[in-house]
Amino acid sequence: MLGEFEQIAQIMAPLAQKAKGAFALKNDAAVFHHGAGEEIVVTTDTLVAGVHFFANDAPVLIAKKLLGVNLSDLASMGARPTHYTLNASYPKDITTDWIKSFASGLGEMQDNFDICLLGGDTTHTIGPLTLSLTAFGTISQGMSLPRLGARVGDLVCVSGTIGDAALGLLVAQGKLEDQRGHLLKRYHVPIPRIHLGQELVGLAKTCLDISDGLVTDMAHMQVGIDIELSKIPLSKAAQQALEKDSSLLNSILNGGDDYELLFTIAPEDREKLLESAKKTNTDISIIGRITEQKALRLMKEDGTCLSNITPGYRHF
Amino acid sequence: MLGEFEQIAQIMAPLAQKAKGAFALKNDAAVFHHGAGEEIVVTTDTLVAGVHFFANDAPVLIAKKLLGVNLSDLASMGARPTHYTLNASYPKDITTDWIKSFASGLGEMQDNFDICLLGGDTTHTIGPLTLSLTAFGTISQGMSLPRLGARVGDLVCVSGTIGDAALGLLVAQGKLEDQRGHLLKRYHVPIPRIHLGQELVGLAKTCLDISDGLVTDMAHMQVGIDIELSKIPLSKAAQQALEKDSSLLNSILNGGDDYELLFTIAPEDREKLLESAKKTNTDISIIGRITEQKALRLMKEDGTCLSNITPGYRHF
Repeated sequence: MLGEFEQIAQIMAPLAQKAKGAFALKNDAAVFHHGAGEEIVVTTDTLVAGVHFFANDAPVLIAKKLLGVNLSDLASMGARPTHYTLNASYPKDITTDWIKSFASGLGEMQDNFDICLLGGDTTHTIGPLTLSLTAFGTISQGMSLPRLGARVGDLVCVSGTIGDAALGLLVAQGKLEDQRGHLLKRYHVPIPRIHLGQELVGLAKTCLDISDGLVTDMAHMQVGIDIELSKIPLSKAAQQALEKDSSLLNSILNGGDDYELLFTIAPEDREKLLESAKKTNTDISIIGRITEQKALRLMKEDGTCLSNITPGYRHF
Repeated sequence: MLGEFEQIAQIMAPLAQKAKGAFALKNDAAVFHHGAGEEIVVTTDTLVAGVHFFANDAPVLIAKKLLGVNLSDLASMGARPTHYTLNASYPKDITTDWIKSFASGLGEMQDNFDICLLGGDTTHTIGPLTLSLTAFGTISQGMSLPRLGARVGDLVCVSGTIGDAALGLLVAQGKLEDQRGHLLKRYHVPIPRIHLGQELVGLAKTCLDISDGLVTDMAHMQVGIDIELSKIPLSKAAQQALEKDSSLLNSILNGGDDYELLFTIAPEDREKLLESAKKTNTDISIIGRITEQKALRLMKEDGTCLSNITPGYRHF
């Protein structure tokens, strides 16, 4: 096992190479700045072994999830990601090989999203592996996408497909089959919608990322919404699972970890949205609309109400 | 026990009231910016129950330590603190009262240093209470104090007194008496040298805060240093303890958690330094000088070497 300083110098410092203000991770603090007319967007998430991931998950996947969930928060604000800091609390039995694999996962994500490690803190813990990551991005001043403020009549949209990660968790728990591995992959590695988020700046009225589940995150918008069940986009794998067991709809609607964007646009901006979808090569579905009622309702294709829905999930 | 959202809204959101870009802690991310000609200084530290503090320490003290150690890092860079984010992983048995007390400690520190909560993440953990705090400050572009680059002949200085916190740890462990409670207080609540740090911008050649112990942090400067034993500033409580048991010198030199500033100045700036000390109402001691040798040496008053010293402490 490498000592703290060797581990930082040999494994982590290469990830900070491009950030001059990271001082090769030798300083107490790091320095960075934004351009004129921009501001910093900051977000932070903690993942705990045994709570947010399985302790024996591959370290590369844990790294990708940790960065992915934070980048997804930046995406929901419309920001361009730039840097991140990492707080790692390692249990005593962690190995140098584990940390190397973890760092390689961070490195792969860095390359994909053109970001750089800026600093952090390494401690040990008598408990489970605990990882906090704080991600920074920039955006034109005053242009970040809000999560509140959707207006009656606005169209409710989502990117990608919904429910795969929740079903992937069932796969990881041995409760569901997943022949092609699509669901498990979606559970392990969220794809932050960074390009779409930036494209939505000035177009979406409100935006958030689906981390707690479609229904819970719709409730976070604090408005009435009618969503049409048949419009909720499902992957082929999710469709097949649902055909075999219709009770999985509950997981699809309430399960978390999809990290797709949930956003609203004015009805007249439908064409612009289609252009944005094309430009960013992202599937986008219009699944419903903001209503005057304060309820979340699941609607049938004929416009009648299937059921009122309530958020069923809280962290604790 | 309050739920996650109620807890954030009722206990944490008041701490974020002054930061418009914190969006009352209702967003996925927060927004802030610096002025023209400035840059952001960022630092982060994790404290784990059972490793960095005792699980039954008063929550107010834990809060002050958590913010204090991070503000101390900003002080060592010369930055003016502005905001912070908090990642709290709570064990299942945490109570709402505990969180309220913890927040009151944060609030007191906020008022002292004119800073504001900006965002964070709350999770639960199957392990010990784990707290990561990321602090932000600003500084004129390119003016942050480096930790490397001290030159031969530069004077080595420290603020305040050295070793109190290390002795305070012994008090907390029941190994040392502390009639007036000074040592224990220094162990529990570091006083970040924020005003001195800003005053040292443009004056100090290098600067860091003493978190790992005087000797270890001197080693971080990567130069040869002769320090004069009699010049190391000790509190009255530390002096008395040392008189009773001379072996405590080891704790004083190697123990951590003092959070005083260790910095170097050019010999010709001695007068300016005295002015800065007066202006910030801080005791400052010149304890040694940078030498051509690569060793750290403890010197007697007559200029002869008492012993070579080597850092004896690593986190793990």
